[in-house]
Amino acid sequence: MRIKSLLSAVALLAAVSCGTSPKAIMTAVPARPAGQENVIGLTAEPMDVVRIGVVGLGMRGGSAVERLSYVPGAVVTAVCDIEPEKAEKSRSWLVEKGCAEPAVFAGDKDSWKQLCEMDGVDLVYICTDWLNHAPIAQYAMEHGKHAAVEVPAALNMDEIWSLINTSERTRRHCMMLENCVYDFFEMSALRMAQEGVFGEIIHCEGSYCHNLDSFWKMYWHEWRSEYNRSHRGNLYPTHGLGPVCQVLNIHRGDRMKTLVAMDTRSFNGGKVVEKLTGEPCEDFMNGDQTSTLISTVNGKTILIEHDVLTPRPYSRMYQVVGTDGYAAKYPVRQICLRNSEEGDGGGRYVAPEKVLSAEEISELQEKYTSVILTPELTELAKKVGGHGGMDFIMDYRLVYCLRNGLPLDMDVYDLAEWCCVAPLSALSIENGNAPVEVPDFTRGAWNVVKGFSYAFAE
Amino acid sequence: MRIKSLLSAVALLAAVSCGTSPKAIMTAVPARPAGQENVIGLTAEPMDVVRIGVVGLGMRGGSAVERLSYVPGAVVTAVCDIEPEKAEKSRSWLVEKGCAEPAVFAGDKDSWKQLCEMDGVDLVYICTDWLNHAPIAQYAMEHGKHAAVEVPAALNMDEIWSLINTSERTRRHCMMLENCVYDFFEMSALRMAQEGVFGEIIHCEGSYCHNLDSFWKMYWHEWRSEYNRSHRGNLYPTHGLGPVCQVLNIHRGDRMKTLVAMDTRSFNGGKVVEKLTGEPCEDFMNGDQTSTLISTVNGKTILIEHDVLTPRPYSRMYQVVGTDGYAAKYPVRQICLRNSEEGDGGGRYVAPEKVLSAEEISELQEKYTSVILTPELTELAKKVGGHGGMDFIMDYRLVYCLRNGLPLDMDVYDLAEWCCVAPLSALSIENGNAPVEVPDFTRGAWNVVKGFSYAFAE
Repeated sequence: MRIKSLLSAVALLAAVSCGTSPKAIMTAVPARPAGQENVIGLTAEPMDVVRIGVVGLGMRGGSAVERLSYVPGAVVTAVCDIEPEKAEKSRSWLVEKGCAEPAVFAGDKDSWKQLCEMDGVDLVYICTDWLNHAPIAQYAMEHGKHAAVEVPAALNMDEIWSLINTSERTRRHCMMLENCVYDFFEMSALRMAQEGVFGEIIHCEGSYCHNLDSFWKMYWHEWRSEYNRSHRGNLYPTHGLGPVCQVLNIHRGDRMKTLVAMDTRSFNGGKVVEKLTGEPCEDFMNGDQTSTLISTVNGKTILIEHDVLTPRPYSRMYQVVGTDGYAAKYPVRQICLRNSEEGDGGGRYVAPEKVLSAEEISELQEKYTSVILTPELTELAKKVGGHGGMDFIMDYRLVYCLRNGLPLDMDVYDLAEWCCVAPLSALSIENGNAPVEVPDFTRGAWNVVKGFSYAFAE
Repeated sequence: MRIKSLLSAVALLAAVSCGTSPKAIMTAVPARPAGQENVIGLTAEPMDVVRIGVVGLGMRGGSAVERLSYVPGAVVTAVCDIEPEKAEKSRSWLVEKGCAEPAVFAGDKDSWKQLCEMDGVDLVYICTDWLNHAPIAQYAMEHGKHAAVEVPAALNMDEIWSLINTSERTRRHCMMLENCVYDFFEMSALRMAQEGVFGEIIHCEGSYCHNLDSFWKMYWHEWRSEYNRSHRGNLYPTHGLGPVCQVLNIHRGDRMKTLVAMDTRSFNGGKVVEKLTGEPCEDFMNGDQTSTLISTVNGKTILIEHDVLTPRPYSRMYQVVGTDGYAAKYPVRQICLRNSEEGDGGGRYVAPEKVLSAEEISELQEKYTSVILTPELTELAKKVGGHGGMDFIMDYRLVYCLRNGLPLDMDVYDLAEWCCVAPLSALSIENGNAPVEVPDFTRGAWNVVKGFSYAFAE
């Protein structure tokens, strides 16, 4: 609440000082501390084996432990949960599989601190409730560990800037575990975009439309519905944003400039809380549907939607609009390109664009298979699973890059850009859908790298 | 250009006067002239036969003449085009079909005035270029005729308010020919929404995504590309807006309150002009992709997109999000409802929502066939055609209501609401994506009628 008040104060200042035309609301950009540099292309010491401590084993963390046991060069050396039975379950799963006995930290709300302080951990892998994501990541880096954090890794601008400053100061990686950038369709579409199949990309869409009716009760002490109850804005923007920001080379030649957001009033949220708690709920803040438009410095636009409260088909939208082509994933895969076929001059109409058949799309996907995929990796990913394999590919790449001392696929600025849409969309909504400026989280380095790419060992 | 300057001035005033928080930009709302009343539920004298003068026969008008010849009780008594050969083509088509010889007005840019002044015309049906829509409609009403106007019927706030004031003063109908509200899927989804199949509707989407590459050269003197060249904003919002505004009961219990818009910079527009004219074009203003978010007084939201410049599959999006269900049309029909099936208690996961099969959707569409459709009308509509029949149903309903002295399905406030998104989205974009207030075009009567409905004779 403190943070929100602070942001509102900044908003008021910007509004009161408006001059000849409406100005975007600006949030504070802290100056980079003296002697500190950006972490564009950050590398760390290579390591033969990545020793991983996993914190938060209730939902995503339990399956992460299992997946990581299949990743070459990864060893889970510690597990942690506030509930001892969760920690024990992951420990015994590892031992039964024949892995080394991990250290176990459990039973206290601060148990994760011991894990972060432990010597035999290189990477802290954080799968707790949202409120604990940034504090644990920060503490991990301060104790010399790299941090990998589930989505959203940070909830407000203070947390975002703290993670940036800490990563820059400690030179530790701070990567958000955005699995959707490793979905097979998104990865091949990214390669198509990079190789010019769609011309220049001008507009992208993404979303998290997922009816959470059967999930709400699973979250520890109802933290997720409580957070939605007390916050407006797109609280879960990263699955939609991640893949399209890679396509648009955000902070790799372009950057987000302005956003505007709009939500419906709350219709279904109160009913969710009443069902969970048996108590009436009249103060649910999050609108059932939130839409956010984002413009970039290079004149591109992004639409991001959020709807976790209405019964509709799961969709991350994922739409890529280019000057010469189009790709979309939901509700069915679509690719459309300029038609190379010309009319025969005899009056027969030939459409200027060609909507590809499912077979043609599959052929194109095959041709533009992501450069990070080998047949072996694809096979293993599909076997281990995790949202069809993308979770495993994410873990694989994270460990591969750490082992080889390479820059990770996603850095702390990606984390910042993808997470900031939650607090900044709330700021727009709370100020009558006013435009809000998206800060340059790199503080001047967004145009240094030209184009998104994956790093590989020699 | 004069209008745009005026609007910018209003924008500046609103911005300069901003107080404690950013205010939406407001446009001028002219006071209702003394002695004039709103036209909510407007009826006019019934007539056995509706005598129709069609103006503008180049593209939509020629097929309108043909369709109208099949509508019971409609007689085309006059045709008009600036190019005499176009008028002659429609005249001879009617005569060859055995219809009465129509009066012909042609050859001059003001020929339509004679048609509007002619005695044997009850309804002026306007299919010219956009710039002539509102002036002709206005002149028609001033000469005692009802006006039916192709989309968009008005291009700026001055034209919109003029049409409203003229319809209110003359008590003549002024209906926009928005055919997409008569598409079979949209009509059945509207009835489902009205009968509560989707719960309360909270968010809707619509668009005009249509690559016009093979159309640009067909417009008389390149008026369409020239208009896009000189204007930003969503210039063609009505096909997407019309159907969703009916679902949301706009000015029938709810009304649009605020919009924000965002566009890409122009990428492909200049290339279109260069191809048409052979001259370089560096000043194309309309962004390839424009997105507009609209909020309503009752806390609902609407997303409207516009893209006529990139190669992508045709889409009007048409998405209806309700508290208990969901419908969408593009790229494939989708309906999703709460799942009535419960889990068996044995741990088997049952999703809380059910995505209907194509067969189930067809059954539901059949069950909720629009109340305006009879088997005979549907058959005739599909035979006569016009975008699969919807154009014919539109003409049929227009003539049916006029003959029976009933309110039309769409009034001048619908026209105003659906058209205003073009100038108001431009205003938002030209002011850094600032929120813009959508005026209450009914000037106080938006909440009198409760819910959209069709009128029928006893």
